[in-house]
Parts: sequence; structure tokens; C-alpha cells
Amino acid sequence: MNIAVVAPSCTLSREAAERLEVLVHDRGDCEVAIHPQCFLSDGHFAGTDEQRLGALREVMADASVDSVWFARGGYGSNRIAEAAVRDLPDAARSKLYLGYSDAGFLHAGFHKAGLNVAWGPMPQDLRRDGGKAAVTRALDWMVKRDPSALEPDLGQPAMAFNLTVLAALLGTVLEPDFTGVDLLIEDVSEHHYRIDRTMFHVTANPNVRRVSRLRLGRVGDIPENDPDFGRDELAIVQEWCARSGIPFGGRADIGHDVLNRVVPFTKEN
Amino acid sequence: MNIAVVAPSCTLSREAAERLEVLVHDRGDCEVAIHPQCFLSDGHFAGTDEQRLGALREVMADASVDSVWFARGGYGSNRIAEAAVRDLPDAARSKLYLGYSDAGFLHAGFHKAGLNVAWGPMPQDLRRDGGKAAVTRALDWMVKRDPSALEPDLGQPAMAFNLTVLAALLGTVLEPDFTGVDLLIEDVSEHHYRIDRTMFHVTANPNVRRVSRLRLGRVGDIPENDPDFGRDELAIVQEWCARSGIPFGGRADIGHDVLNRVVPFTKEN
Repeated sequence: MNIAVVAPSCTLSREAAERLEVLVHDRGDCEVAIHPQCFLSDGHFAGTDEQRLGALREVMADASVDSVWFARGGYGSNRIAEAAVRDLPDAARSKLYLGYSDAGFLHAGFHKAGLNVAWGPMPQDLRRDGGKAAVTRALDWMVKRDPSALEPDLGQPAMAFNLTVLAALLGTVLEPDFTGVDLLIEDVSEHHYRIDRTMFHVTANPNVRRVSRLRLGRVGDIPENDPDFGRDELAIVQEWCARSGIPFGGRADIGHDVLNRVVPFTKEN
Repeated sequence: MNIAVVAPSCTLSREAAERLEVLVHDRGDCEVAIHPQCFLSDGHFAGTDEQRLGALREVMADASVDSVWFARGGYGSNRIAEAAVRDLPDAARSKLYLGYSDAGFLHAGFHKAGLNVAWGPMPQDLRRDGGKAAVTRALDWMVKRDPSALEPDLGQPAMAFNLTVLAALLGTVLEPDFTGVDLLIEDVSEHHYRIDRTMFHVTANPNVRRVSRLRLGRVGDIPENDPDFGRDELAIVQEWCARSGIPFGGRADIGHDVLNRVVPFTKEN
């Protein structure tokens, strides 16, 4: 089981990379190659668009790689997502792509292109208190498809997105078909008024309105709304589901935290 | 010249309202009625959706009102914009609607419904240092169509939007036809990475790609990007215009500040 780590968004911390190497060594059931591109820096990003795309395309085309693991989120994968799925080599189709948060741009475009993607913890989570459990969960899925890593109530098909990332990819070439999808959303560091505005945007979309249900993961680190917004994120999501006719399916076990679970977009045979 | 002030988004400050009454009294060329709804409060908003919609519909239907002036931005007009243009009374069609920022949701939906809208300063701007000049500019446009109030290089047709508001209304029923439009954008309090992400979203839209050109107003109060983003808002907007084939038309004289100019969406006869 060979896993390649690349960073299509922001730079991976050396500390997280070192912890990952220890963790993988102790497990002894997989090989994890952290691409040197993960440590590049170009302003906000882990290298220029060309460097990030180059590393991603390289591991996608490598037939010896079983899983491509996105090092961390932040922002930037949208800038290379369309180019990443152009003229796909066969080897790109036989592997799993795993990550969350900003990686949602890749998840959307890759899933649309027929690739096998999953939402799940990333190496940078090792910087969180208790992050080892999260990263172990991702490895358990990549290495042995351990069902205990999964979000426990997944319909088929299922998709998971950061709400703000989902909003930003609607209307772009990355937008996947949401028909019949069990759609899980979560968010982090967004004010309640922004969550309300983004839910207005997302639930207005005719494609999104074709989901089988929408479920709300955790919304973390919400900055203080001035004045108090007057309702919480659960009430906000329920209201926009009701206004748009989307069935609200309750809570989901995902989020920007160490309890974040795995959500495969495609059921594997 | 009768001007009605309502607050479809957030609560107007008493201080700004008092300054406005003094300013209007001193001018002596118009009557400004500040609707009591402007001072209501319901969590984030200037009253419930029903209260804000009720006040807005009331002044829209009032044949004695020449201009409807949105008291301030913030967030919330999207929640009532679709309902505001339902079964329009004739009186709604013979007046001007002026504001900016969050009022963009109303501008879009109202313009699409054939109403006469304009981007321009609002009463709450009287809380800014030098805000009297901004509000005087808006009044000069509403009362006497003073051309010195206008953004100086407007093509026809023209539209102005807060970039984040524009992104949030794409794909909703409020989205207007951008064909041939001189599209002016500005933003405030958004990180460079967010501006980049929003430009990705907006410039991917096929409708937006039909503008005659896109121009960048001022982007104020940009929070620090960690790490430094590596390029400024001008470079960001130019890059996404180049990537999407949208002609970049240079800078525009609008923004969340006291120099903000008026941009009528429709040329009046």
C-alpha cells in the first residue's frame, strides 16, 4: 500500500510531516511518500500553481501509488483543479484521493471526471491535539478500508464538502451532479451571517436542490457576530432547507476537528 | 422630491439618522422620511424578515415617494429580495432605489424586474469621517441628477456590486443579465485569499463572462493574510480576468468609503 502526499493548497508543516513518518513507521502496514513539493512556499501557496499541479499530476500518473493524500487545506486547489483532470492517464483512475476542506475543489472535479475520491483527515491534522486519532482513521481507510473510519449514516451516493468551498465551486466547471446525493456540509471560522448568506446561495442552486438530503456536520471556531445573530447554525441550515424544499437529514459526523470521519463519494466494488 | 429610507439589512444608527435630518433640513430641497422600521432590531437584522419586507413594500407602493434609499448594508436583504418584487404595484416602477453593499441583492433582483436602481452612498455613511460628502453626493443624485455624483467613466449599461454579494447572488433568482455590462466591483474586510477564491467563482460564471469589461473599485480593510498572499487585489482581479477572457477595464471610483460614487444601472430618459 503506497500513499503519496502532495499539497495542492498550502504548505505542510515540517512538524506534522515528522509526526506522520513516526506514525506510519509504527503502523508498519503502508509506505507514505511525502512529496518535496509539500514544503515549497509561494506566498499563500505550497509553491506556484505550476509546482503544485506538477507534483499532483506526477503522483496521479504513477501506477505504483495506491492513494493520493492531500497534505492540508487552506486555500488554492481550485487554481489547479481543472488542469489536474485534463488528459487523465490510466493510472490516475485506479487510486483513491483523500482529504477535506479546500481539497473539495479537487474532490468535485475529480469525482466529475470519474475518479475515486473521499473526504477524510489529512496529515496537517497531526498538529491538532488528539490529531493522531484523526490521521489514523484516514490511514485505516486508505490501507484496509476499515468501516469504522466512515461517517456512520451514509446514504449512496454521498458527498461531503466545506460549505464555503461548495459555494465557491457552484457554477464552475468543477460542479458535480448532486442528483440523489446524501450531501454533508461543515464549516469553520465563518460568522453566522456568512453561513446564512452561503446557505442562501447554495440552496438556491437547482442542481443542489436535487440532493436526497442535506446534513450538517460541525461548524467550528465561529467568530462572534455583532450583534448576536439570533439563531445558531443548525437553525440557519434547517431554515434554508425548508425554504428551498431540500430535505434536512440531521447532523453528520464531520468537521474541522479530530473526530472528522471519512466520506467516500463513490461506493467501491 | 420625497425620499423614503428603509433598512432591508441591518439597523440604522440613531446618530446617523439625526445627522441626516440636519443635513436635509439645511439643504431644503427635499423631504426625507426615515421609516420607523429602520430602528427595529431582530438579532442581526433591522427587524424580522416580515417587518423589513413590509416596510420596503410599503414605500415601493407609495406613489408620493420619488426615491427609496436603503439605510445601510450589513447583511440580510437577500432574505426578502425575491418577495419584494412579487406582484409589483405600478408605483414601484416610477421611482429610484439607491444604496450599496448588501443592497446589491435588491439591486440585482429589482433591476431584473425592470426597476430603476443605482449604487451609491447610504445614510449610515454619516458615521464615517467625512461621510457628509458621501451622503450629499447621493442626495445630489436623487434630488437633481447631478452628474458630478457619478462614477466618471461609466459605460452603458453599467452595474456595481460588492464582490462578495455578487458571488452570493449568482445562480439565484436574483441574478441579472450581465451581457455587455460595464461591471464595477469593490469589497471590504475580505482576506486576499478570499478575494482570489471569490474571483475564481465569479469569473467562472458564463453570464458574468458576457460583460463588456470588469473594473475594480477600492478594496478596504483587508485583514492580514497569514502568510502574506504574495499579490495584491489588483493583481488578483487582473489574473482572473485574463484566465476567464473577461476584459479588465482598470480601476473604478467606488468603495466602502466616503469617496464612493453613484452608478445608475439604467440610463434614465
